[in-house]
Amino acid sequence: MPELKNDVFLRALLREPVPYTPIWMMRQAGRYLPEYRRTREQAGSFMNLAQTPELACEVTLQPLRRFGLDAAILFSDILTVPDAMGLGLQFVEGEGPRFARPLRDETAIAALQIPDLNRLRYVFDAVSLIRRELAGAVPLIGFSGSPWTLACYMVEGAGSTDYRQIKTLMYQRPDLLHRLLDTNAQAVTAYLNAQIQAGAQAVMVFDSWGGVLADGLFQQFSLRHTRQVLGGLLREYDGRRVPAIVFTKGGGQWLADMAQLGCDALGLDWTVNLAAARHVTSDHVALQGNLDPMALFGGDAAIRAEARRILADFGQVGSGSGHVFNLGHGISQFTTIDAVTSLVDEVHTASRAYHAA
Amino acid sequence: MPELKNDVFLRALLREPVPYTPIWMMRQAGRYLPEYRRTREQAGSFMNLAQTPELACEVTLQPLRRFGLDAAILFSDILTVPDAMGLGLQFVEGEGPRFARPLRDETAIAALQIPDLNRLRYVFDAVSLIRRELAGAVPLIGFSGSPWTLACYMVEGAGSTDYRQIKTLMYQRPDLLHRLLDTNAQAVTAYLNAQIQAGAQAVMVFDSWGGVLADGLFQQFSLRHTRQVLGGLLREYDGRRVPAIVFTKGGGQWLADMAQLGCDALGLDWTVNLAAARHVTSDHVALQGNLDPMALFGGDAAIRAEARRILADFGQVGSGSGHVFNLGHGISQFTTIDAVTSLVDEVHTASRAYHAA
Repeated sequence: MPELKNDVFLRALLREPVPYTPIWMMRQAGRYLPEYRRTREQAGSFMNLAQTPELACEVTLQPLRRFGLDAAILFSDILTVPDAMGLGLQFVEGEGPRFARPLRDETAIAALQIPDLNRLRYVFDAVSLIRRELAGAVPLIGFSGSPWTLACYMVEGAGSTDYRQIKTLMYQRPDLLHRLLDTNAQAVTAYLNAQIQAGAQAVMVFDSWGGVLADGLFQQFSLRHTRQVLGGLLREYDGRRVPAIVFTKGGGQWLADMAQLGCDALGLDWTVNLAAARHVTSDHVALQGNLDPMALFGGDAAIRAEARRILADFGQVGSGSGHVFNLGHGISQFTTIDAVTSLVDEVHTASRAYHAA
Repeated sequence: MPELKNDVFLRALLREPVPYTPIWMMRQAGRYLPEYRRTREQAGSFMNLAQTPELACEVTLQPLRRFGLDAAILFSDILTVPDAMGLGLQFVEGEGPRFARPLRDETAIAALQIPDLNRLRYVFDAVSLIRRELAGAVPLIGFSGSPWTLACYMVEGAGSTDYRQIKTLMYQRPDLLHRLLDTNAQAVTAYLNAQIQAGAQAVMVFDSWGGVLADGLFQQFSLRHTRQVLGGLLREYDGRRVPAIVFTKGGGQWLADMAQLGCDALGLDWTVNLAAARHVTSDHVALQGNLDPMALFGGDAAIRAEARRILADFGQVGSGSGHVFNLGHGISQFTTIDAVTSLVDEVHTASRAYHAA
């Protein structure tokens, strides 16, 4: 593998000194890019796009050709794992993902097995190919859904507004839900380790739905099984530390607990104040975030002002603290190219003052 | 007006000693009650139900006939105010509320006026009628949406998943949004005061969408205008303090700011730990909440255990601190009557230990 030319992202995650604050964007390979829309159309379906390594590689690289982003992230979907477990993932146009066979009873949960990783070969092939094509330009991030977030989709069968099915299971049969979460945790661990072995240089766990849980239950049903994943992860590979990031959307009240997870960085949504987050996590982890994706609709001056506000909220970055700039959620499909250009430029330029040793 | 027989709710809001923790439930007059569904059908439409004082009164009283709740809340909708401003509220079956004329440009916002309260006469008539029919059994709560939450609907024109329209306005033209929020604040103040004069004994401001704002912007665009409302409210009427409750869904990280608002109580969703909330608000306000409505699907034992957990999280309630039990969001239409009976019983019974002087 060629040597990494830009390792600012990896070093920021490990809270090592860097010259500026690195930036990447959740869902940076996505519909706001005309070239993505063309490739997506070529692919015919979202599943075909995600399952064809050459196409997944192409869309992963597209945003890097336009913007000076400091990391690439594998183009895939968090639901590949339950799909490989046999739940039958379908993307209905305009409706989001749906499972043909959601888990609705004890028999279905008891029968659930961690998937044969060969069924996810297309993901690892994409990782290897992207890593090769990147040629060391920037690091590649692998990812997975958290055990809880995957369970939400697996039990609800689709997105939900009230999470009634999985919460009914949680309150009525916590034992059964823990069994499902344990299976998911084992599957996610194996899945992320295979991505690391295929070439992912950092990994991120998306706990997209952890924030719908009550205080106390979040710790039991989300955090506990994310910790299980982190405990089984390869933390060094090929002679280099593989940083792990955990992102709980809506998890701002639980950062003190999350700082004890054993990950290198926490992803934050835009409701979190970065100065307060540094304080409550005692700079024990790096922080990633946290611009509201909707700020990208404010025009050049507002985008730059919001970026500077976030950099100022984090404050001085030095040895022992780390900040990776990101959005607090995926970029909107309606975002303009110019807006992203302004953001990346402002972060790279304005952040240098905060890294002066 | 007949004397109030059960003032436990009002006293708890004012952090005065009470023998047990009072309980009411957001959306307690609602679709989970078969008698509500019958009245709703009779009414023909949701708007007719909300706009006919006799029907609004009937559904307000229905849950009190079944359960030993400690407060009644006016049956209405938060969108009555923008409707009276001329935006044309419509309820499309299965789709939620929608405005025929959302605010989409400067001209529309500049033209917006606080509504003629006569157009909201049906609300005040309902309040008077309910108060009379309650005959002092329990206090009656009036309510309104917050200036920010109303603005979300007024600009988006309907519910939203990303709040792109209003956030674009916020980032591009903060001056214009503040103008809209100022008009809303004046309207909400007049609306709540008229409810108080018609007989509401406490008022609640629902900031349902405050939690979608970034830290910093929440304080500027939501909190500031809610404070404006509180500053203009009648705080005493008919010789008695009229407590005001503010509820920001997803506002758990901003409780220290909210405790300085000038309201008597803060509503909390289920992501908040009550012990932490008491600490951060220094018992400066009473707290209302915070059971996950989905816990009501756990069966009798789990419902009671969750209720006890919340009471224990709050801990000892004495002079200077106050707790009103509630859900952290509206009750689900799929909830059973038995579940509510269990909850009310457990709160009333188990809470007594925490009120022992």
